[in-house]
Amino acid sequence: MSARTLGAARALIGELTREVDDFPEPGVQFKDLTPVLADRRGLAAVTAALAEVAADADLIAGIDARGFLLGAAVATRLDVGMLAVRKGGKLPPPVLRQEYLLEYGSAVLEIPAAGIELAGRRVWIIDDVLATGGTVAAAGALLTEAGAAVAGAGVVLELAALDGRARVAPLPVTSLSVA
Amino acid sequence: MSARTLGAARALIGELTREVDDFPEPGVQFKDLTPVLADRRGLAAVTAALAEVAADADLIAGIDARGFLLGAAVATRLDVGMLAVRKGGKLPPPVLRQEYLLEYGSAVLEIPAAGIELAGRRVWIIDDVLATGGTVAAAGALLTEAGAAVAGAGVVLELAALDGRARVAPLPVTSLSVA
Repeated sequence: MSARTLGAARALIGELTREVDDFPEPGVQFKDLTPVLADRRGLAAVTAALAEVAADADLIAGIDARGFLLGAAVATRLDVGMLAVRKGGKLPPPVLRQEYLLEYGSAVLEIPAAGIELAGRRVWIIDDVLATGGTVAAAGALLTEAGAAVAGAGVVLELAALDGRARVAPLPVTSLSVA
Repeated sequence: MSARTLGAARALIGELTREVDDFPEPGVQFKDLTPVLADRRGLAAVTAALAEVAADADLIAGIDARGFLLGAAVATRLDVGMLAVRKGGKLPPPVLRQEYLLEYGSAVLEIPAAGIELAGRRVWIIDDVLATGGTVAAAGALLTEAGAAVAGAGVVLELAALDGRARVAPLPVTSLSVA
């Protein structure tokens, strides 16, 4: 990723991200990227930077739901397809399924097990925020199980204190900004 | 929308949509667009056609979750921003909120009530499937409440038997294919 592209994306992320105290629970400061993505310059700068990260992808995998937005924008810039990695129960059978732990409870991600050839495809995973890394790690495991060569993950914002990078390893993560 | 662009999109939708009997319940035939969007040609053709539909938009509104994917691809082609219209509870306050009826029960859509200027913006709503029309109608009501000029809705697939078009009226709907 060029310093100029990254700098432009970082400047707009900093300018347009909305910080909201005590959401979703007391003591947490939520960083809302909605205004970045709703801004013409913001969406263009963020997706240009992620497209440089994922430049050698022949398929983008976007994670339900905000990763769909970013992943599809990146896929459109790169002129490749975009695989929606879905929350459990949304896809018709047959599916590949990965359950993973959250802070409280667990969640499920699924991808189709028929109709899309993933073996040997070079895939980059795209999502909005890297928090604990559980979701990105589960997406990586699913795609690997399907035979894809997962090159790495690109995110807009990394919450460094949660050390999601360690959970996703050895898959490399590139983040446009760190909080 | 040009006949050529529409024809190319329809051909790939027809070729790549996966039809699954008895999902999500017995007697229903599910039309899964996942393989269309994961295909380089499919994603490009569908988003090119929807971008022609929404060519005069200065903001795209994509509906949670598959509308994020299509909306962001269209916004990237048009070089405008993409507003994520979210399911209830995902956005920090303050929000505008619209509850609407489903076949069984109800659902909620929300958009931010601060940080994004929507008054006077020319918005097209993008989603994957028009079924009963409740979701698109609720998104239109939310955006109108925020002061936007909602020009219409564009979808990949319209399930004509459910007559969603009537529920969304007077907002016009353009669909790339009808089942």
